[in-house]
Amino acid sequence: MRNEFKNDIEELVESISESYNLEYYIVPRELGSLPNRDVIIEILTTLRRLIFPSYFGKNSFRKEVQEFHIGELLINVTEKISKQITLALKHQARILENFNEDDFILKADQLGYEFISKIPQIREYIATDVQAAFDGDPAAESKDEIIFSYPGLLAISIHRLAHELYELAVPLIPRIMSEYAHSITGIDIHPGACIGKYFFIDHGTGVVIGETAIIGQHVKIYQGVTLGALSTRGGQKLRGVRRHPCLEDDVTVYSGASILGGETVVGKGVVIGSNVFITNSVQAGTKVSIKNPELLFSEGGPKEQQKEEIGFDWVI
Amino acid sequence: MRNEFKNDIEELVESISESYNLEYYIVPRELGSLPNRDVIIEILTTLRRLIFPSYFGKNSFRKEVQEFHIGELLINVTEKISKQITLALKHQARILENFNEDDFILKADQLGYEFISKIPQIREYIATDVQAAFDGDPAAESKDEIIFSYPGLLAISIHRLAHELYELAVPLIPRIMSEYAHSITGIDIHPGACIGKYFFIDHGTGVVIGETAIIGQHVKIYQGVTLGALSTRGGQKLRGVRRHPCLEDDVTVYSGASILGGETVVGKGVVIGSNVFITNSVQAGTKVSIKNPELLFSEGGPKEQQKEEIGFDWVI
Amino acid sequence: MRNEFKNDIEELVESISESYNLEYYIVPRELGSLPNRDVIIEILTTLRRLIFPSYFGKNSFRKEVQEFHIGELLINVTEKISKQITLALKHQARILENFNEDDFILKADQLGYEFISKIPQIREYIATDVQAAFDGDPAAESKDEIIFSYPGLLAISIHRLAHELYELAVPLIPRIMSEYAHSITGIDIHPGACIGKYFFIDHGTGVVIGETAIIGQHVKIYQGVTLGALSTRGGQKLRGVRRHPCLEDDVTVYSGASILGGETVVGKGVVIGSNVFITNSVQAGTKVSIKNPELLFSEGGPKEQQKEEIGFDWVI
Repeated sequence: MRNEFKNDIEELVESISESYNLEYYIVPRELGSLPNRDVIIEILTTLRRLIFPSYFGKNSFRKEVQEFHIGELLINVTEKISKQITLALKHQARILENFNEDDFILKADQLGYEFISKIPQIREYIATDVQAAFDGDPAAESKDEIIFSYPGLLAISIHRLAHELYELAVPLIPRIMSEYAHSITGIDIHPGACIGKYFFIDHGTGVVIGETAIIGQHVKIYQGVTLGALSTRGGQKLRGVRRHPCLEDDVTVYSGASILGGETVVGKGVVIGSNVFITNSVQAGTKVSIKNPELLFSEGGPKEQQKEEIGFDWVI
Repeated sequence: MRNEFKNDIEELVESISESYNLEYYIVPRELGSLPNRDVIIEILTTLRRLIFPSYFGKNSFRKEVQEFHIGELLINVTEKISKQITLALKHQARILENFNEDDFILKADQLGYEFISKIPQIREYIATDVQAAFDGDPAAESKDEIIFSYPGLLAISIHRLAHELYELAVPLIPRIMSEYAHSITGIDIHPGACIGKYFFIDHGTGVVIGETAIIGQHVKIYQGVTLGALSTRGGQKLRGVRRHPCLEDDVTVYSGASILGGETVVGKGVVIGSNVFITNSVQAGTKVSIKNPELLFSEGGPKEQQKEEIGFDWVI
Repeated sequence: MRNEFKNDIEELVESISESYNLEYYIVPRELGSLPNRDVIIEILTTLRRLIFPSYFGKNSFRKEVQEFHIGELLINVTEKISKQITLALKHQARILENFNEDDFILKADQLGYEFISKIPQIREYIATDVQAAFDGDPAAESKDEIIFSYPGLLAISIHRLAHELYELAVPLIPRIMSEYAHSITGIDIHPGACIGKYFFIDHGTGVVIGETAIIGQHVKIYQGVTLGALSTRGGQKLRGVRRHPCLEDDVTVYSGASILGGETVVGKGVVIGSNVFITNSVQAGTKVSIKNPELLFSEGGPKEQQKEEIGFDWVI
């Protein structure tokens, strides 16, 4: 670096340092260490190896040492998650000014254990999701292909883990997990959502499932589906209020449809067509489609009167 | 870890271990080693360096040692892909109960070689895709920018590789490649799709191209476009059936449009407008748009009678 | 590898080597080293630690050594970005055949310093974005959760950095940064877009914001929103032309809406409903919604006459 910039950088260090003293919300250092996103992703990776033995590990899985293998992964994951929960609880308590150092480690150990004790049940649920994907997708070559590569399965697997932590009221960590899943799959499921067995998301990019959504068994949704709120104008005043819909068993929702509102109930066996936009309840057994917009066909070429029908390359 | 949890963990190990014996489809360990997703991604990284010399390597590319450099990358990639193909074939054969150890390595070596021998042709295709992106996007500063950063180019590059393996009937690996591309680009192209030269996907997030789609030359599609199936209700019974549309040369499809069905043919030079939803064939040269839904304008404020027009922040 | 393939591979090396001599645009090796995408991502990671102290570092942030910490990160990032700018400028100059080695290092150092000197101002903007997300999302548990996990915040943070480099006319690097953000968030903001304070993108997957878009303060947009061009048929002839809309202060745009065209101005306080498609200006204070397409309800079962209303699983 040139000398002329050295002095400038000293000034800049000071200027940044001062800015750290001004704006609390992006400088929480006085609140101690925070959970570490990288470690939380490592935890998810280890849990995936436990849930899908032999798919994601480096070494092949040998039946004769199965219990040692499980034990090793489990102890590793328990220690890591308990540590992260401790950090998350401490941080929350300091914000709430309700801090008592000794309580946290014990509480975090208990929460960590409660979480890992759910693994057999979570596996049972995820096994039904694999089955639902296989039954629902003619392009699926095998269940192995689904486990290896389907983003919908990855998203629901991570959701089922994050949801348990959400239920245990662990702060920060569930959302870090779900947004990690969002990042790699394009599927955004808030950890608060309650989702039944045999859930299948096909393709998945652009799916949004809100915090208070409730989804039954054997539900299938496609890319670009939103299960959302009617409005978020209330902002933080709406925290904890039911804002997202309920889908009963055997519902199918095709691509691009939006179902909004905390009082909206989509009954058993309903089929919602592509691009349908719904804010009221739908009776069980109904099929809902949109009357598709009229299509306009022309032989092309730049025509002045067609300027209204945009999205075309001859309009400009 | 506290002692009180040690015993609990031993029980949990047993409980997970038992669950491994119950549910085959997420415990295929008895079927031997599976292909390794991380190695498959390494293969794609090496292939990208071969296809775009000097863009992605750590060292600059020197013309005088070009052949050594190519040779090294090529041997590396051939050995890795053959190993992965061996694992994929063995796994498939064990499932089919048609297992004969000796055949696999030879067959995998042959398939691996057939695959890499396609690289010059794949490069030729990808070069046309770079050109199409440059010609089609006024925001493109240079072809280098496209190669470095355009998700559409990355998705079609990986597709062209995965498609060759699909054509060679290699199990598992093509889909792992294409879902890796989906994960980092939001563009979901099934490795079965046949795509002509000069293909350009702009922005790309949410694009879905199904297994049996056929796409001609000089086709351009935008974010959120689906080339899909009319229905997947048949599930696994539909495997191998033509379910996705054909787009002839010079077709443009704007954002959010859906073209569905295995008998749908979109003729040469057709332009499909934004959000069009089509399930029938379209004659060559036609422009198709939707008659846009009527827009409602109001001066705002909470009005009871507007509750129907949702998606607004004054409705709740 | 078998001997029979050894010779074949030698031929293949030659064939690939020859193809490198044919097609310039995927072999720019004669133009020297290019910027390195991995290093550019490292730079973004370091900048994130500077902007959000204590959130993303491995060690906890200690107030008493704050200035040393800032200084170390800043020197690291300045040297790296200057090196990458040097490579980008050299590459551009060689293409423009306007090459004078000595000029670049000085110019790159100056540009690198100008860039990092913007960090305090960028932090100030990003702090307003955190606030906007917290105020706008009832699912936000805390500002920490937003900083750790919201893809919208990550996308706008990287955009604010990339935009400064775009303003300094640095080639290649801004777009590599913005497409990296696109890859991990599904949000595609061209580095050229001008965006005011308090910007909030909720969910975000599928958002596209074009190069010449202008966005005021306190603007909120949802997943799947496009601020795009009416047409890109002109291709490279349109470079530099204003093609994207302007959104004034306090505008909200709900999911799936498209606002297109360089002459389109959306006035102060306007609310655009879900799936609205707009190509003309909208007066301040207006709410715009679509008259939703008529919904068709049926009790299901395969009916011939419903073949038009597709997207349903009973149609095939």
